[in-house]
Amino acid sequence: MSENKTQYTIAVIPGDGIGKEVTPWAQQALEKAAGDAAQFTYVDFDLGAERYLRDGEILPDEDLERIKGTDAILLGAVGDPRVKAGVLERGLLLKLRFALDQYVNLRPSKLYKGVTSPLAEPGEIDFVVVREGTEGLYCGAGGAIRKGTEHEVATEVSINTAYGVERVVRYAFDLAMKRRKHVTLVHKKNVLVNAGDMWQRIVDKVGEEYPEVTHDYNHVDAATIYLVNDPSRFDVILTDNLFGDILTDEAGAVVGGVGYSASGCINAINEYPSMFEPIHGSAPDIAGQGIANPTAAILSAAMLLRHLGFDDAAARIDAAVEADIEELGSTTRSTAEVGRDILSRI
Amino acid sequence: MSENKTQYTIAVIPGDGIGKEVTPWAQQALEKAAGDAAQFTYVDFDLGAERYLRDGEILPDEDLERIKGTDAILLGAVGDPRVKAGVLERGLLLKLRFALDQYVNLRPSKLYKGVTSPLAEPGEIDFVVVREGTEGLYCGAGGAIRKGTEHEVATEVSINTAYGVERVVRYAFDLAMKRRKHVTLVHKKNVLVNAGDMWQRIVDKVGEEYPEVTHDYNHVDAATIYLVNDPSRFDVILTDNLFGDILTDEAGAVVGGVGYSASGCINAINEYPSMFEPIHGSAPDIAGQGIANPTAAILSAAMLLRHLGFDDAAARIDAAVEADIEELGSTTRSTAEVGRDILSRI
Ligand SMILES: CC(C)[C@H](C(=O)O)[C@@H](O)C(=O)O
Ligand SMILES: CC(C)[C@H](C(=O)O)[C@@H](O)C(=O)O
Repeated sequence: MSENKTQYTIAVIPGDGIGKEVTPWAQQALEKAAGDAAQFTYVDFDLGAERYLRDGEILPDEDLERIKGTDAILLGAVGDPRVKAGVLERGLLLKLRFALDQYVNLRPSKLYKGVTSPLAEPGEIDFVVVREGTEGLYCGAGGAIRKGTEHEVATEVSINTAYGVERVVRYAFDLAMKRRKHVTLVHKKNVLVNAGDMWQRIVDKVGEEYPEVTHDYNHVDAATIYLVNDPSRFDVILTDNLFGDILTDEAGAVVGGVGYSASGCINAINEYPSMFEPIHGSAPDIAGQGIANPTAAILSAAMLLRHLGFDDAAARIDAAVEADIEELGSTTRSTAEVGRDILSRI
Repeated sequence: MSENKTQYTIAVIPGDGIGKEVTPWAQQALEKAAGDAAQFTYVDFDLGAERYLRDGEILPDEDLERIKGTDAILLGAVGDPRVKAGVLERGLLLKLRFALDQYVNLRPSKLYKGVTSPLAEPGEIDFVVVREGTEGLYCGAGGAIRKGTEHEVATEVSINTAYGVERVVRYAFDLAMKRRKHVTLVHKKNVLVNAGDMWQRIVDKVGEEYPEVTHDYNHVDAATIYLVNDPSRFDVILTDNLFGDILTDEAGAVVGGVGYSASGCINAINEYPSMFEPIHGSAPDIAGQGIANPTAAILSAAMLLRHLGFDDAAARIDAAVEADIEELGSTTRSTAEVGRDILSRI
């Protein structure tokens, strides 16, 4: 952000399950890393399964308006087994991503020293997935007829626009310029010929403006193979909403678990606040036990700081996390232990 | 198949790239394994990039009719860099799957002794993906408006019917009864709520008829993680066309390479011939060098034999492949060497 302000309002949405357990640590890391460089005022939002089950509300307009007035959002996780699949995900998480036009879903994958990857010979893994965040199959443009009968037909529609694709493609090339200057478009253009062809044409066109950046293409099925047997080939992976969802979870697995993977849902023109969250879900199976790893949430606080322009503060969190993982990554620790260990290094 | 005939006509479609190099070995394995139990007449079809580039034909009606008259199809691979992505895939491979109503795309994944998995501790891997083959995003129901302009909109439509889903769900539960009696539905029902909800309802309903079979559900993103860090949890994975495409390539990678993965595109009511093919593609990067591994193609011949009711002959191929991999899997061999080594054991 270009403004030189030092006062920021942060919306905090812990959400469901382990989201509630890890978010406070992200908040503390933010606070400590920023030090005197910035003052954060936190606005807590009671959104998620509890609120929905209590009074039927998912994301009231009023809350959305207040969130729009903040500078950034820290989110935990959304989803609860007591609520039908999709209700909270679409009504809260995706609604925020869409309403705040967070068209870049940024998901770095890095194999930290001290983490045991499930891969035998992982090599160096350090890539970023730039996932489109406001289009594709996530639009909610589908329906069903004759529901519950043997003649039921259910559709899901992927909507892709040149406008929506071009802006995220540009973001990916800009990002590549700051990295190893390589973009890999991932799609399934041999089957999804309409959307795939448009993505490829726009990548080719934008790519011409970045002569220093090389770009290639992988079908999504082939990309899942490369993530397992040759992940170091990737620098910036550029892909659509659904493929990005799938590839980043697989990527999380190859770098030793989604517990280390943070993400930013970014409105890159700062028209609305951007949102930072671990890529893991609410993990109902381990919620409430105090054993969730807060590292990804803490790393998302670093992404938030970097987004607001506090690169040094962000780097302090990243360094603390790296040091923590290198020294203690293989030990079994509670949420609070990991949180305290990382905080003590910031 | 219930008929007790011994004369079969097999359509052979080597297709493109390494498809042409591996298919002859599949044919020889078929021949040798069947011995006197069956007589196969082969009908070769010149379909693929060469034909298309020569005379513009992809799959003429006449050829399709002749293929319909055969008992089964051996296919190599389809796709060529000289032809725009999608043309051959949709015009030939997917057209066959759809026209022959091959609604079960069966893809076993097994970690053979002697194969080095890229996973550090793979455990026992032995599952089958039952991928729906005639619906979903593969229907070709999409389009584009204002193509090439900044106002372009491209859509892809996933069409799912209760009819199409129920028949493949039943197949999966029947298959589970012959295996470890567990079905995992993979979808993304928290986002693709229309299709996902229908799949889940049909699985729940059909599941009631199979009290011995347990079933659970994974989001596709979570499934990509389990394939890497806990693949032995799976027995039968049941999923849609696109997710099946993605998961089976990832599965191929975790079992040491798609070079060992065969598949069957099955019309389970035998209204039309079923088709057997390696899951790998035409691999233009290594085509023409005589180094493609014919194992997957040979295993697809075993699937063909099993489909026609020749279980013993199929088992002979499987055993030969297993023995070959265990003894020589880690050596570097040409296509012909692997082919000969496996044939010598049948
Ligand atoms: C919870 C779900 C809707 C979400 C998604 O699919 O985007 C999650 O998997 C993610 O990756 O952030
Ligand atoms: C070539 C392509 C159309 C095909 C598919 O997507 O089904 C292939 O990837 C496969 O898995 O058989």
